[in-house]
Amino acid sequence: MDLAKVKKIAIIGVGLMGGSLALALKKKFPKLTVWGFARSQASYRKLKRLGFLDKVETDLAKLVSDSELIVFGLPVEAISVYLKKISPFLKKGTVIFDLGSTKSLIQSQAKKVLPSETVFVGCHPLAGSEKSGAEHSLSTLYAGSICFITSAKSKTTRTVKSLWESLGCRVIFIDPNSHDRILSAISHLPHLLSFSLADFVPKNYLEFATPSFKDLTRIANSPASVWADIFLANRKNILKDLEKYLKLLKQYREKLKHSDKTAIIKLIDKANLKQKRVR
Amino acid sequence: MDLAKVKKIAIIGVGLMGGSLALALKKKFPKLTVWGFARSQASYRKLKRLGFLDKVETDLAKLVSDSELIVFGLPVEAISVYLKKISPFLKKGTVIFDLGSTKSLIQSQAKKVLPSETVFVGCHPLAGSEKSGAEHSLSTLYAGSICFITSAKSKTTRTVKSLWESLGCRVIFIDPNSHDRILSAISHLPHLLSFSLADFVPKNYLEFATPSFKDLTRIANSPASVWADIFLANRKNILKDLEKYLKLLKQYREKLKHSDKTAIIKLIDKANLKQKRVR
Repeated sequence: MDLAKVKKIAIIGVGLMGGSLALALKKKFPKLTVWGFARSQASYRKLKRLGFLDKVETDLAKLVSDSELIVFGLPVEAISVYLKKISPFLKKGTVIFDLGSTKSLIQSQAKKVLPSETVFVGCHPLAGSEKSGAEHSLSTLYAGSICFITSAKSKTTRTVKSLWESLGCRVIFIDPNSHDRILSAISHLPHLLSFSLADFVPKNYLEFATPSFKDLTRIANSPASVWADIFLANRKNILKDLEKYLKLLKQYREKLKHSDKTAIIKLIDKANLKQKRVR
Repeated sequence: MDLAKVKKIAIIGVGLMGGSLALALKKKFPKLTVWGFARSQASYRKLKRLGFLDKVETDLAKLVSDSELIVFGLPVEAISVYLKKISPFLKKGTVIFDLGSTKSLIQSQAKKVLPSETVFVGCHPLAGSEKSGAEHSLSTLYAGSICFITSAKSKTTRTVKSLWESLGCRVIFIDPNSHDRILSAISHLPHLLSFSLADFVPKNYLEFATPSFKDLTRIANSPASVWADIFLANRKNILKDLEKYLKLLKQYREKLKHSDKTAIIKLIDKANLKQKRVR
């Protein structure tokens, strides 16, 4: 695949992520044709109204059969389903990549169901928002973000790399398992904690929400359909991390029970040091 | 106490909170004299250099003996110590208030050690920052914040109320125990979770910090000396809340272990609903 020669890109799953990619690509490559898939009449009407796609297509065969590049912006589980659905219609040399937050499962699925003359490239740009839906798309969503590519280096993956770089991403090659371990710690467990915190707090206390409480619960607004999938697709890593985190909370509980100020200060000091390295 | 007649205010504990109060008061009441206490030579030099106080005083007796109003900007435990130290020097009718994040303990201490002809008013403005130190003071820190007053309504507490209102706060009267229960849920437990999250994450993952991870660990930079005190002063409520929170995490663990997608979606849906009420 030669980026300069790509004429048509098809996006399956035009939500916040897919929509923002469409906007960014159209801005950077004005001659490029970007089609999007609509799974329902409601999404067809919405995407037509938003108007940033060259065509909104409801027929998968028509959508993918002459696309050089196909992008999945769907939730993790749906990607598996749609990989199967499109595989009969793909032309030779088609490159397919996704934007999913977990990678091992999707990549093994892709290997199973896609024809061997196509290339699947696992991608995960670390961008997003607690908002969802194509109507919140931003052409700048990916600018300045890290983008993981979890397929081995090759001519094709390097082309996908340049695509992301042209949108302002810093690309990091990594294997899918390491990716999933990192994301569990840095994103999936934090979402679980934020959901739990929002759920935990009594309703009548919410009017007293401090700025820090708002920060900690902002992502508790993230969509259940997307996140239940992520939690399940990466459950082994998340369960391990949750266990580690529970141990830390239990340490606090013990030290608090014994009013052990020195130990509590030590725990907070450790957290302070770590936080200073978050950039 | 008549606000219009107050000539001198003394601040004991000129850090971010005390310093910001000094700045805000000087801006609103240009004729007011604001003195600050320096516990050490280093803090004396720093406060002199910052220059926003009318006088930096190292002698507690001189500081408080002719002040109509004394404000404590110290960490919770230090307030108890200094309440005792100043009590011999207070003139009749002096009003003392604090800015501490827990209230029951401080108020019972104040009752014990202060002369009966003075009035202690528990105050807690819900403002702050993960930064600390007088050098980060902002005259606007309190504008738009809620300020809890945890002493019963009286002529004096109503005057303190107008003082906070003149700085742009919305004042809510509440009893100290309810205050401490609310703050445990809305601020103290969230800090504990943020400290634990920063501590939990492997060092070499930090370069991949997402915007949401940064939001969740921002307050993990909060000073250990201040927060160990808060945790201990409000330990009973925090321990109760921690127990409730651990139960929620264990629910997630169970549902994840059994790959129970429906149950996980239900949990996230509940969190989404709560989050929408955070304003």
